[in-house]
Amino acid sequence: MATLGTLHVIEARGVASASLAEGELLRKLGDGIVARLGLTVIGAPQWHAFPAREGAFGGHTGLWLLSESHLAIHSFPERGALTLDLHSCRPIAPLPWTEILTLALGPCAVRVRVVDRDEAP
Amino acid sequence: MATLGTLHVIEARGVASASLAEGELLRKLGDGIVARLGLTVIGAPQWHAFPAREGAFGGHTGLWLLSESHLAIHSFPERGALTLDLHSCRPIAPLPWTEILTLALGPCAVRVRVVDRDEAP
Repeated sequence: MATLGTLHVIEARGVASASLAEGELLRKLGDGIVARLGLTVIGAPQWHAFPAREGAFGGHTGLWLLSESHLAIHSFPERGALTLDLHSCRPIAPLPWTEILTLALGPCAVRVRVVDRDEAP
Repeated sequence: MATLGTLHVIEARGVASASLAEGELLRKLGDGIVARLGLTVIGAPQWHAFPAREGAFGGHTGLWLLSESHLAIHSFPERGALTLDLHSCRPIAPLPWTEILTLALGPCAVRVRVVDRDEAP
């Protein structure tokens, strides 16, 4: 049966707000994951920097349109958190997600859930 | 506590391939959901039409960058399926997802899962 693949649903918490406001760092994080998995980006990733509010750093959103579906990263400096979603309609190699996010952002906790889009209800 | 919101993970199956190849129909589906929930789109949604392969219709991908996070739609005509992911970092009203997708695409089955990004591990 043709598969719809998997969705990785990831949250990193306890991250320094300043790191979550560094667009370039987040862009490299996403680009590194795409490269490591051999995924194919279509067009330029779409980025938005949210304005700082109430003295807090502004967050960022990055969306990569992939041949294999998509990667989305959102940072929430005011919450010390980052979310990362990767939908791939073809099987991908397992990645050490906690290690990758810890190296990039030094979070206190990383949560990884994998949603199988084909499993029976 | 500041919330990271919810991720709706939705699959529609048993959809006519021709419908899944209609970019305009899928764009309206996504735009309608965004409007109905009062979400705010930043920039132009990013769209890609995949080429037809082996006599089958080509699929489409649409990514909406939102103030509230993102909406991603992928169609897979060769599989008769569509996936829809909506991450909103603020609470959203409940929608009749099955009804909305049935009206738009006439699928045989719709599956909706809601991932709480805050719940304790």
